[in-house]
Amino acid sequence: MEVGRAYTRVDAADKVTGRARYTDDLHDGPMLVAKILHSTIANGWVKSIDTAAARALPGVVKVLTCFDAPQIQYPTPGHPWSTDPGHQDVADRLLLTRRVRIYGDDIAVVVAEDEVTARRALKLIRVEYESCPVMLEPEQAMEPGAVPIHEEHPDNILKRTETVVGQPDEALSDPALLHFEGHYQTQQVQHCHIENPISYAYMEHGRITVVTSTQIPHIVRRVIGQALGIGWGQIRVIKPYIGGGFGNKQEVLYEPLNAWLTTQVGGRCVKLDVSREETFQNTRSRHPIRFDIKAAVSSQGRIMARECVAISNQGGYASHGHAIVANAVNGFRQTYPDAVGHRSVAYTVYTNRPAPGAMRGYGIPQCDFAGECLMEDIAREMNWDPYQFRLKNIMPLGYVDPTNGITCYSTALARCMEKGRDFIRWDELRAKYQNQTGPVRRGVGMAVFSYKTGVYPISLETASARIVLNQDGTVQLQLGATEIGQGGDTVFCQMAAQAIGLPTERVNIVSTQDTDTAPFDTGAYASRQTYVTGKAIKKAGELFREKVLSYAREMLPQAGELDLRAGEIVDGGSGESLLTLEELAMEAFYSLEHSVHITAEVTNHCKENTFAFGCCFAEVEVDIPVGKVKVLRIVNVHDSGRLINPKLAEAQVHGGMSMGIGYALSEEMKFDPATGRLLNGNLLDYKLPTAMDHPELTALFVEDEDPSGPFGNKALGEPPAIPVAPAIRNAVLHATGVAVNTLPLSPQRLVEEFRKGGLI
Amino acid sequence: MEVGRAYTRVDAADKVTGRARYTDDLHDGPMLVAKILHSTIANGWVKSIDTAAARALPGVVKVLTCFDAPQIQYPTPGHPWSTDPGHQDVADRLLLTRRVRIYGDDIAVVVAEDEVTARRALKLIRVEYESCPVMLEPEQAMEPGAVPIHEEHPDNILKRTETVVGQPDEALSDPALLHFEGHYQTQQVQHCHIENPISYAYMEHGRITVVTSTQIPHIVRRVIGQALGIGWGQIRVIKPYIGGGFGNKQEVLYEPLNAWLTTQVGGRCVKLDVSREETFQNTRSRHPIRFDIKAAVSSQGRIMARECVAISNQGGYASHGHAIVANAVNGFRQTYPDAVGHRSVAYTVYTNRPAPGAMRGYGIPQCDFAGECLMEDIAREMNWDPYQFRLKNIMPLGYVDPTNGITCYSTALARCMEKGRDFIRWDELRAKYQNQTGPVRRGVGMAVFSYKTGVYPISLETASARIVLNQDGTVQLQLGATEIGQGGDTVFCQMAAQAIGLPTERVNIVSTQDTDTAPFDTGAYASRQTYVTGKAIKKAGELFREKVLSYAREMLPQAGELDLRAGEIVDGGSGESLLTLEELAMEAFYSLEHSVHITAEVTNHCKENTFAFGCCFAEVEVDIPVGKVKVLRIVNVHDSGRLINPKLAEAQVHGGMSMGIGYALSEEMKFDPATGRLLNGNLLDYKLPTAMDHPELTALFVEDEDPSGPFGNKALGEPPAIPVAPAIRNAVLHATGVAVNTLPLSPQRLVEEFRKGGLI
Repeated sequence: MEVGRAYTRVDAADKVTGRARYTDDLHDGPMLVAKILHSTIANGWVKSIDTAAARALPGVVKVLTCFDAPQIQYPTPGHPWSTDPGHQDVADRLLLTRRVRIYGDDIAVVVAEDEVTARRALKLIRVEYESCPVMLEPEQAMEPGAVPIHEEHPDNILKRTETVVGQPDEALSDPALLHFEGHYQTQQVQHCHIENPISYAYMEHGRITVVTSTQIPHIVRRVIGQALGIGWGQIRVIKPYIGGGFGNKQEVLYEPLNAWLTTQVGGRCVKLDVSREETFQNTRSRHPIRFDIKAAVSSQGRIMARECVAISNQGGYASHGHAIVANAVNGFRQTYPDAVGHRSVAYTVYTNRPAPGAMRGYGIPQCDFAGECLMEDIAREMNWDPYQFRLKNIMPLGYVDPTNGITCYSTALARCMEKGRDFIRWDELRAKYQNQTGPVRRGVGMAVFSYKTGVYPISLETASARIVLNQDGTVQLQLGATEIGQGGDTVFCQMAAQAIGLPTERVNIVSTQDTDTAPFDTGAYASRQTYVTGKAIKKAGELFREKVLSYAREMLPQAGELDLRAGEIVDGGSGESLLTLEELAMEAFYSLEHSVHITAEVTNHCKENTFAFGCCFAEVEVDIPVGKVKVLRIVNVHDSGRLINPKLAEAQVHGGMSMGIGYALSEEMKFDPATGRLLNGNLLDYKLPTAMDHPELTALFVEDEDPSGPFGNKALGEPPAIPVAPAIRNAVLHATGVAVNTLPLSPQRLVEEFRKGGLI
Repeated sequence: MEVGRAYTRVDAADKVTGRARYTDDLHDGPMLVAKILHSTIANGWVKSIDTAAARALPGVVKVLTCFDAPQIQYPTPGHPWSTDPGHQDVADRLLLTRRVRIYGDDIAVVVAEDEVTARRALKLIRVEYESCPVMLEPEQAMEPGAVPIHEEHPDNILKRTETVVGQPDEALSDPALLHFEGHYQTQQVQHCHIENPISYAYMEHGRITVVTSTQIPHIVRRVIGQALGIGWGQIRVIKPYIGGGFGNKQEVLYEPLNAWLTTQVGGRCVKLDVSREETFQNTRSRHPIRFDIKAAVSSQGRIMARECVAISNQGGYASHGHAIVANAVNGFRQTYPDAVGHRSVAYTVYTNRPAPGAMRGYGIPQCDFAGECLMEDIAREMNWDPYQFRLKNIMPLGYVDPTNGITCYSTALARCMEKGRDFIRWDELRAKYQNQTGPVRRGVGMAVFSYKTGVYPISLETASARIVLNQDGTVQLQLGATEIGQGGDTVFCQMAAQAIGLPTERVNIVSTQDTDTAPFDTGAYASRQTYVTGKAIKKAGELFREKVLSYAREMLPQAGELDLRAGEIVDGGSGESLLTLEELAMEAFYSLEHSVHITAEVTNHCKENTFAFGCCFAEVEVDIPVGKVKVLRIVNVHDSGRLINPKLAEAQVHGGMSMGIGYALSEEMKFDPATGRLLNGNLLDYKLPTAMDHPELTALFVEDEDPSGPFGNKALGEPPAIPVAPAIRNAVLHATGVAVNTLPLSPQRLVEEFRKGGLI
């Protein structure tokens, strides 16, 4: 079996030796350098820009402002295109903007022969603004009389939706039930991928090529076409290795601007990379969402109904629009089906913050924090063991989600919980830490989650794969799906090997996507690739295998039923080897009778989805006087179906847990309320946790074969980040009795809450 | 019609603006530089090499010698691989050699951090040799007792073949016939492409990537595999634009050495480019061939039989082996079928010259010189008009070549001759220049030729093509066939457009071949691509069209017969437009019902061939005392079937004519007979003609549709170079009465010949 092996990453050696080449390692001769001028106000208008001094600086090739840029509004999120205008993304961006909506908005750009000149030129540009009051919170933006950030939305509400399932009010107003309320607030955090966004663009044959660090090359191609108002086929996007994305590169960031710049300098190559500060300020982040929840629970501990009102702070631009908070309220409901009914109300509100977008989990880490805090708080109030309370209410086998029709194929969540409970010694520690005193106390907490696999049926799921035979019986696997550091290339090779009947060693992945030749795929997001692209690989592998066997039958007309196993054509019955794939390939290439170059290319239009599950258990030690939480032990247990590569799965979970720890304890983008300026947009002031801040991270799995997955597999990319923050918050609650409902649980916040709770 | 349009080259703007990127324009980060140490003897052995001083030089990364290199002998010519060992190329090369066979042979290599260091290190290497006498001519090498240049061939004859058609001796000994003898000698010339051979190599995923200026990327891949003894799929070859090849880059030159070097420095990127001097000395050239001919002709002017003995000077390495002289003697016979019989005897002889290989025409310019001199000399002696004498003897319609079965489908050669005769005013000038005196005289001469299209049935002809639909109704055309300056990419686009039913503007060529993803094709040689690859493009276009129409039928279930014309789905009967290809593409990509990414990939195994024809007429003025020939007017007339792009066809002919003029008048590689050192291996001393040396070049065509060609087309790439030298030689003969039988007609040679002829 090639699937299920802990196969070493195909890019491991190149990456650890520094030989793997990223966008900035690829230099096609001399490049011009572009640098962006950012606004020094957060809300208002550019009245005028004086570029004369900048243009006069030797080495400056071009200075372009918001008064020069095309006035074509375009969308930026990495969603599959919809032919239904009502389902298309919000097009609220311009390449450069006169209407300033965030501190640091893009208002002009300098293209120069080198970076120093470009930076000097930026300083010579004089801008006159007209300012409005800064609104960083939805409450401010929704106030009557607030200046509309986008004219199309006078109340600054991008969208409000209300979804009702069953009869929530029946239960929520039933005096025979127990009633609870919860108010939970998540913070704005950034992806902090190692490689900042970077691209370069040039023209060839009158077409534009953009080499860029992206998760979604085919979507970047489309959005550049939209932004520049040219045919999508006139753009070529090339994606080399990327240094992380986590959803930020599921957005079309500066590629359209870069593409436009090359057209303004006669097709010369222009590089546009951004600093860490610009990455924080001008690219995406995770939405801060406020959840106001009501719940009605039976005395038997059954959740009868919940109402969830979520207000999502969208910042200055729509990005993924309403999709993330919609996903969040849906996810809030999904894990624990309410017996009687559910209501969710979701708001997406423009503010003057840097615009959040997709980030690992796509709203679910937020809702899982709210939902798992709520479950903990109810259990605590009802004197239930939180483990048992959750177990009673989780989604049962065969459950069909009433809004999207996705079916629960697995009971593995309960077994994940059991595994986590045993690992952390739940019952023992829950009892042991019951009645602590003193400044340092310990606790254990948990959280569970469910997660969809890909975006069907909300959006299109489509992927193609191509397989090319070489003379030595190896193959190339070519995809539009992307390796973004997660190990995609490796598991794709394993899947192709499995489908064809080859050792994985004989599959060469074409790691770089070039939209001119790569099969179409919407890219890396929504934990979709091993599932959706995996199905395309399986189909292409099967077609390839059939073509090989058909040629084998030409070569071996006397043979019985043939099969391809481990790279050999064998007798289907006896398993006797009749021909190696290398021998067959040599004949197929060079036969004087029948030469054919065997390749197979297949589209998979995926019309399935499935739930992945998991949980986190954490043991913490809280130093109450200094508000310091130390995570002593932590375990994530995942049901992601069958693991394609157990080692890579473990690594994926470790990364997600690390991200969850930062989300729980230290990370937060902080703003000056007066100016809207980001105060900690760098990796010194923004407290990303390091390995030094982590205990040993434990990843466990329950491997149930998913009946809908190509190889029994389902989502794993995003889930690990989801349950960590609520598990830690619940452990702190267990340790201290103090329920902290706002993330992160930073020392400042904890000290404040402990004071309120009377602990200090 | 897209085929037949004078469509502007797709790469025109990029090339004239300098934006087109060649191998040396592509820099993937810092590169190591390799420089080769060449022997200072022409024949002998390396006894020892002392590299200590070179290795000690700071910045030197590696010094490798012939004592370190793998001892795997490999072949270098760009022939399709044969699974028949008897038909495989001669494997007589090592990456670095102890046995020195030419002056400047490759005996060691330095890899350094930069070029200056590499060159300094070369000078620090000390070599001890054991020398043998230098043999530059076949006559020397064939002498009894001569040192074998390759042990496998003690007599230095790589191969001798004799081919008899009919009963040549019957006519050659018939006293009733007229008998003639001729002795003709061609010289060694070099391709002189602008871009010297260059490559760089690095490792990725444990595989070797070589970016190289080649005509034959898929063959380079194979030969590297052979030379290094590794699976061919473990190598990836990328071919960017190249600055000319003319057959020299139909050879695998330094790519295997470059590939090996990167494996010796841990996969770091190593660049290996060679100087103009090395290009002359160490890469290929055109074979000097001596032809000794007997002919028997009837008194009615019918060629009854000929015998052609050809001795080809192969230099130190086999390269294309016996194939070129075999092609030459075959070509000698082919144009004028002998009534009674023909004998050809061909020798390929190793000498200590730089090894010749493929060069535009592949032996045919040599044999056409011999053959067309002979025809002229016979006509002159028999008092026939040389035009009429040729006309009487040329291949008739329906003629089937007795050795390869290729059929003559066209009578256009006679019409080409007529067109050329009219252009030059043959009859008028032949008469006018009849009896000249004085030091400056004029003459007109002519020559004709026939030429095969591709290599079938001698070798395999196979090519694949892939077409990819974009959302805007444009497509990418991806091929393994290569643009080498000839305009291939442009005519490929026209062919695809024609086959699909699209305007050519909507076809984007993928100009760079990457063997990991490009369809297989053996590459640019033998004037095969528009014919063999053209058939693959036609088939792929038709399959693509069928897939599009099949999707159209899903979208338009009520419609009648559908057709695709000029990028629109139309009613097959009325021609009414029903849908644009863009609309169809958008639906196919993004349909929620049936999403499919339309692509088509097809192999064409070509089992056909056809003759192309043409002729050259030249008017010259000869300044007898100084031996100077001035070409006053010159015209080539070609039957290459239907022209895909008349403008590019004209340009192709101009280039060939220029090459022919240099071959006729000035070009020759000259050697020091004592040391074997090349004396004029640079563009100052080697007299390549320039535009200043040319009259207006006229290209005319007779466009007969070829029944076997994909679009009625056949060979055009090489033919233009063929008939020019004999036409000029025959014009000089007409002007002066002196028959010069050795090329080139340089002033030195002409003065000598005119002295012998008593003119001075």
